[in-house]
Amino acid sequence: MNEGLTHLDENGKAIMVDVGEKNATGRLAIARGEVRMKESTLKLIMSGEMAKGDVWAVARVAGIMAAKKTPDLIPLCHPLLLSSVSVDFTPHPGQGRVEIEARVRVTGQTGVEMEALMAVAVAGLAIYDMCKAVDKEMVVSEIRLMEKHGGKSGTFLRQE
Amino acid sequence: MNEGLTHLDENGKAIMVDVGEKNATGRLAIARGEVRMKESTLKLIMSGEMAKGDVWAVARVAGIMAAKKTPDLIPLCHPLLLSSVSVDFTPHPGQGRVEIEARVRVTGQTGVEMEALMAVAVAGLAIYDMCKAVDKEMVVSEIRLMEKHGGKSGTFLRQE
Amino acid sequence: MNEGLTHLDENGKAIMVDVGEKNATGRLAIARGEVRMKESTLKLIMSGEMAKGDVWAVARVAGIMAAKKTPDLIPLCHPLLLSSVSVDFTPHPGQGRVEIEARVRVTGQTGVEMEALMAVAVAGLAIYDMCKAVDKEMVVSEIRLMEKHGGKSGTFLRQE
Amino acid sequence: MNEGLTHLDENGKAIMVDVGEKNATGRLAIARGEVRMKESTLKLIMSGEMAKGDVWAVARVAGIMAAKKTPDLIPLCHPLLLSSVSVDFTPHPGQGRVEIEARVRVTGQTGVEMEALMAVAVAGLAIYDMCKAVDKEMVVSEIRLMEKHGGKSGTFLRQE
Amino acid sequence: MNEGLTHLDENGKAIMVDVGEKNATGRLAIARGEVRMKESTLKLIMSGEMAKGDVWAVARVAGIMAAKKTPDLIPLCHPLLLSSVSVDFTPHPGQGRVEIEARVRVTGQTGVEMEALMAVAVAGLAIYDMCKAVDKEMVVSEIRLMEKHGGKSGTFLRQE
Amino acid sequence: MNEGLTHLDENGKAIMVDVGEKNATGRLAIARGEVRMKESTLKLIMSGEMAKGDVWAVARVAGIMAAKKTPDLIPLCHPLLLSSVSVDFTPHPGQGRVEIEARVRVTGQTGVEMEALMAVAVAGLAIYDMCKAVDKEMVVSEIRLMEKHGGKSGTFLRQE
Repeated sequence: MNEGLTHLDENGKAIMVDVGEKNATGRLAIARGEVRMKESTLKLIMSGEMAKGDVWAVARVAGIMAAKKTPDLIPLCHPLLLSSVSVDFTPHPGQGRVEIEARVRVTGQTGVEMEALMAVAVAGLAIYDMCKAVDKEMVVSEIRLMEKHGGKSGTFLRQE
Repeated sequence: MNEGLTHLDENGKAIMVDVGEKNATGRLAIARGEVRMKESTLKLIMSGEMAKGDVWAVARVAGIMAAKKTPDLIPLCHPLLLSSVSVDFTPHPGQGRVEIEARVRVTGQTGVEMEALMAVAVAGLAIYDMCKAVDKEMVVSEIRLMEKHGGKSGTFLRQE
Repeated sequence: MNEGLTHLDENGKAIMVDVGEKNATGRLAIARGEVRMKESTLKLIMSGEMAKGDVWAVARVAGIMAAKKTPDLIPLCHPLLLSSVSVDFTPHPGQGRVEIEARVRVTGQTGVEMEALMAVAVAGLAIYDMCKAVDKEMVVSEIRLMEKHGGKSGTFLRQE
Repeated sequence: MNEGLTHLDENGKAIMVDVGEKNATGRLAIARGEVRMKESTLKLIMSGEMAKGDVWAVARVAGIMAAKKTPDLIPLCHPLLLSSVSVDFTPHPGQGRVEIEARVRVTGQTGVEMEALMAVAVAGLAIYDMCKAVDKEMVVSEIRLMEKHGGKSGTFLRQE
Repeated sequence: MNEGLTHLDENGKAIMVDVGEKNATGRLAIARGEVRMKESTLKLIMSGEMAKGDVWAVARVAGIMAAKKTPDLIPLCHPLLLSSVSVDFTPHPGQGRVEIEARVRVTGQTGVEMEALMAVAVAGLAIYDMCKAVDKEMVVSEIRLMEKHGGKSGTFLRQE
Repeated sequence: MNEGLTHLDENGKAIMVDVGEKNATGRLAIARGEVRMKESTLKLIMSGEMAKGDVWAVARVAGIMAAKKTPDLIPLCHPLLLSSVSVDFTPHPGQGRVEIEARVRVTGQTGVEMEALMAVAVAGLAIYDMCKAVDKEMVVSEIRLMEKHGGKSGTFLRQE
């Protein structure tokens, strides 16, 4: 018996569940994660020419575009007409850590958790890609849902 | 000055760096990560019908296909003809944790770290997607490069 | 003169026809097809470790993801927000034949025949891919629409 | 035990098998299939303005582009740099049948059977799409590999 | 300060702006552009066998499919369910010039200017691709919005 | 007869031509184009916060990623493993004009003209997208090949 794993039928077979009966409501999801790196790596990104450079913009665009590709990447995810996506970075120089936050909105029949989580993950990996020549030990981590609003299941606020 | 961030030029502008002069050698990258979840969620996946079901297969396929899409997702990543991809899961039921490992091989001019990291991240997010109806607090985490072989920079083995 | 080939204008030029005036109604399409193979090939898939393995799951995911990509593959097909997709397999061991059935639902302005047919075709080809090392003579066949509900043209039930 | 299903490991898990040791040789695959339709439908495509119209060109382009997308559609398929693709149609007006043939060449480490089969399937479905307003009972069928040259397994010629 | 560049926030950061509050209205955009080429190149396309060949159809399909891919190409563009796309060519043989016009309709919350402009650009580049063996000096040019209807900003008609 | 349009066979049918016999040589293509806009629009991009903002980075990433997608967009274009892509902008404030230049390198069997032209076109359209709220009359124009090196046809230098 399935007991709540809605993406699998009673025999454990993958299905893209029917959301046709759900209401199209305004929905918002906020996800966060982080990239941990050497302090010297973070300093490098934040100093001199690099500080005015494209690092954040490239990672931001990577995250936004990945949010739009989510149904292409997550097999059982429904296509959605995202109404907004934003991705922000907060560097913590003393800690060798960059926080990533993505916010995704839609008016639709399913939530946008996956889109927000995907934006965080791919933005983090794009930072890894740009810095890997100097620091292969970076870790993309703590990718998690912070808030979710709208839809039948209502509001979710992560307790931390 | 750029000082090693090879994906940005001396003015901080993003470029897809020239790898045309690099040798095409055999390369391997191994990445790992994990999904942390409630113990009850992991039990649900591993018990009864679900245990024989599609959860792992769906996540594995998601990871393998994402590895192939990496240059579409990471803006400055080079396209590559991957020669193999595998994704494995090790559930740790007592700890509410699933470890994910991806191995990617190529014969080519650049390494496949990003492909292996992407496979781990998307496989983890696919698990999140299938279980989110019962557990919204799962965390996809510790996505990191474990080993890298081949290419001019030689072997990298993560110290943990 | 065009006489009903709605995807071509009066000069025979391809167009993506205007569906803007059509009502968004609930729609369902069911398509079927089959893969014919040696009986020994089908036995191999259905026996021992393979029986619990990923063959069906991989083919199912391939079919579901292909349904979502239909407007990317069929040039004049409209993008749609699919509300559900399922793909099922019925092996007929005595006949060396696997039946494939796909069901696709949408609330939208055009039908989902193409999405259901695409899911069947690609699921069948994915089976071919996984078994081709032992059987190159498999045939993916009889891909056809079985039922169609909703929309102005109403219900279609195939007579067989 | 796996016994030759090379896309699954000894536990039945899906893998994208390692082709890194295989030689890059010239390879060719030829696949065929057909679309069966009402004779009146085929007449409609072949007469008057339609005969000079875009039907065949649209279906041909759909098939060629689908061949290039094969690794995006077939989960365990390797990416390849196709060196040529052609798709041809032979209408058989008396039989309400259009034959489709695709030829794909590559110099690479794996064969191009899947690419040729995919080109046939998607070209056939594109014909279905353009004619479905007048004939929902068309069948895309008999998608099969005719010839395969190059690579370690050598020449395959289908016996019919 | 941003002063109207709606795709950048007050700090100049890229965002995919929120259109969730906008009304879904019927919208139309018409874009035009041209390919300039040697007169002999245009004659070649328009004469003999080529005149009945696939050149225009291939370019038309390229334009239509590119319109559907716009949100995948333009980073901050919203996904939309296009309700129609058409692409037309007007060769001006005396002037070595082909005019391209694309019309795109949608019922949605944002306009379809980008989709129409993308269709023109890619259709033009597809012509370039097919003719480049005989004429590398072709220019794809004057890609511009001609008309825009629907939405809050109302009707735009280009003055030329 | 075809007379040099290598992408069409002797009957005018589209084919993806066989490059299997061509040598894999180092190749470079340089393309240019421009976006013409109101002087006030260009000032807006270049002043205050916007000057340090993401406009150029977003357009640059759009161009680089589009270069990688070229075989997905241009129907008869061969897939290639690009070894580098760069996109640069030169604003001409007095003239209300931004010049775009793309450089693409590959070691392969076909040239990269189309990739360079595509990068210019999509980078230009991305600028249009970000500025269209203040200036709908921008024109993306003069997209042309400047230089081409490598391959059997040798060096091409545009005369202007």
